[in-house]
Amino acid sequence: MGGAFTVAVDWGTSSLRVWLLDSAGAVLSESRSAEGADGLAAGGFEACLTRHIERLGRAARGARIVMCGMVGARNGWREAPYMPIPARLDELPRHAMRVAGAGVDALILPGLVRNHADAPDVMRGEETQLLGFSAVPGFSGLVCLPGTHCKWVRVRDGGVDDFSSAMTGEIFRLLAQHSVLRHVVDPQARIAADDPAFLRAAAAGLARPEALLHTLFSVRAAALVSGLSAGAAAARLSGLLIGTDIGAALREVAPGTAVSLIASGPFVALYEQVFGLAGVRPRVFDADEMVRAGLFRAARLWDEMELCA
Amino acid sequence: MGGAFTVAVDWGTSSLRVWLLDSAGAVLSESRSAEGADGLAAGGFEACLTRHIERLGRAARGARIVMCGMVGARNGWREAPYMPIPARLDELPRHAMRVAGAGVDALILPGLVRNHADAPDVMRGEETQLLGFSAVPGFSGLVCLPGTHCKWVRVRDGGVDDFSSAMTGEIFRLLAQHSVLRHVVDPQARIAADDPAFLRAAAAGLARPEALLHTLFSVRAAALVSGLSAGAAAARLSGLLIGTDIGAALREVAPGTAVSLIASGPFVALYEQVFGLAGVRPRVFDADEMVRAGLFRAARLWDEMELCA
Repeated sequence: MGGAFTVAVDWGTSSLRVWLLDSAGAVLSESRSAEGADGLAAGGFEACLTRHIERLGRAARGARIVMCGMVGARNGWREAPYMPIPARLDELPRHAMRVAGAGVDALILPGLVRNHADAPDVMRGEETQLLGFSAVPGFSGLVCLPGTHCKWVRVRDGGVDDFSSAMTGEIFRLLAQHSVLRHVVDPQARIAADDPAFLRAAAAGLARPEALLHTLFSVRAAALVSGLSAGAAAARLSGLLIGTDIGAALREVAPGTAVSLIASGPFVALYEQVFGLAGVRPRVFDADEMVRAGLFRAARLWDEMELCA
Repeated sequence: MGGAFTVAVDWGTSSLRVWLLDSAGAVLSESRSAEGADGLAAGGFEACLTRHIERLGRAARGARIVMCGMVGARNGWREAPYMPIPARLDELPRHAMRVAGAGVDALILPGLVRNHADAPDVMRGEETQLLGFSAVPGFSGLVCLPGTHCKWVRVRDGGVDDFSSAMTGEIFRLLAQHSVLRHVVDPQARIAADDPAFLRAAAAGLARPEALLHTLFSVRAAALVSGLSAGAAAARLSGLLIGTDIGAALREVAPGTAVSLIASGPFVALYEQVFGLAGVRPRVFDADEMVRAGLFRAARLWDEMELCA
């Protein structure tokens, strides 16, 4: 374990996480808050980041900073470009946006873009988790990164071949909070991965992902007809959506394709369980560790780039 | 054309339509308003209906009243039962709820229920359109009734064998108004059935209905990447949803199954166009005419029931 090496920043839509990493990538100190990129005015990013770096302690002052996520979006601090796919992940720092200010010298890593007229797609943040993940031996196959917009990524030889974003998490929230299902679903319910209502719905979604529009209404009908509880209705809705998401993704890849799950929080158990129903055993990685590993690796590559320059 | 025979009432969630029909089912007079069942207090239904009947003219006073729709829901005027499927449509009046008051003698027709543990479903209102439709020669096959919750019904020999509700219309509204797509979609856009953005997305939905969760985000990405306009984004979203809806429904029936479309307003052209892309030519019926025909037929059957009693 060496001294302070870099400040790693994961700046998403609704949260900010800042770590001080040593020269082996280990965490020396950490600062978190809900100051997501969505809530900050254009001029507020530098002051906010400086405050967090202060909290990391004296060793953090003057360290290079590597950032990823919505901080690089059009309405973020500075718009970082998108790298088109297929893309090599270790090229990310070369396409980064450099932000140098009074007290900061920072890189904002680029997102990825899929330039396809009928199905364009973008990501910001997950590419950095994948850069961290790309150090894992046997890094290849299909990677699932659940969330508001679940990312499904085909990776090979340190590169991203293809990806798509599924609106799974956002549609759960929309239906539970704004649709006719809001009368019967508890949006705050804790869903257990072994809840029978979750499992049956997940199996239905896996078996017939094409029927989602037709099966969602059953959550409402079950409440009317058989008095489904608000917690069971939430489990049923979640199971239908995750089953459909996984079922659709698995149809796009050859049977036996290796699957990795990069997740944190309740998603881990729920997605792992539904993969199991589909006969797939994903390797599971922690999303927080992966993003730190990706930011650390980007800092190393930045170093190398400067040594070569 | 005879004298006044019955008052026909289609009382939905957000609108009320009242017609005075003669003994051949022709419209003598009509009254409409936005006093849907959702906005009325329990005690307000009778006064509201009486006001509308007054507007129909003197001939309407004392006429028998047949009603359908959300007026018979739990939070409507009086809860009418659901008839379980398979169901013969001409049995609907036998399971109706009778409401007799100071100035009214009314039937509320029952809805239909699909008692299936994994995919229960309910309808209220469309069964009456189907009762009207059941007088059409060759009444058989798959019937599509688009709307907030699009109903897909398998009909045969004057009966309903099976049905399912697709949340197509509601999900369009949710995504356009509340999701991340709201930044790029104009929810009020008039969508032309021959708009290339609509057609391409509909074809994608038809081809891969299982991919809906994965393709919706492309509406957002296309706006970021290629500057898709808010009107084209609405057309693309609508095309994806209607294509997925129709694609999923057609997978459930044998090729060559006869399809009927019972619709009104913009749905007619949009659904007819997407059926055409799928190689299906539906017979098209006007939803307003069908509900009037169903209410009229129910009034006739009510008459016969009383004569037999």
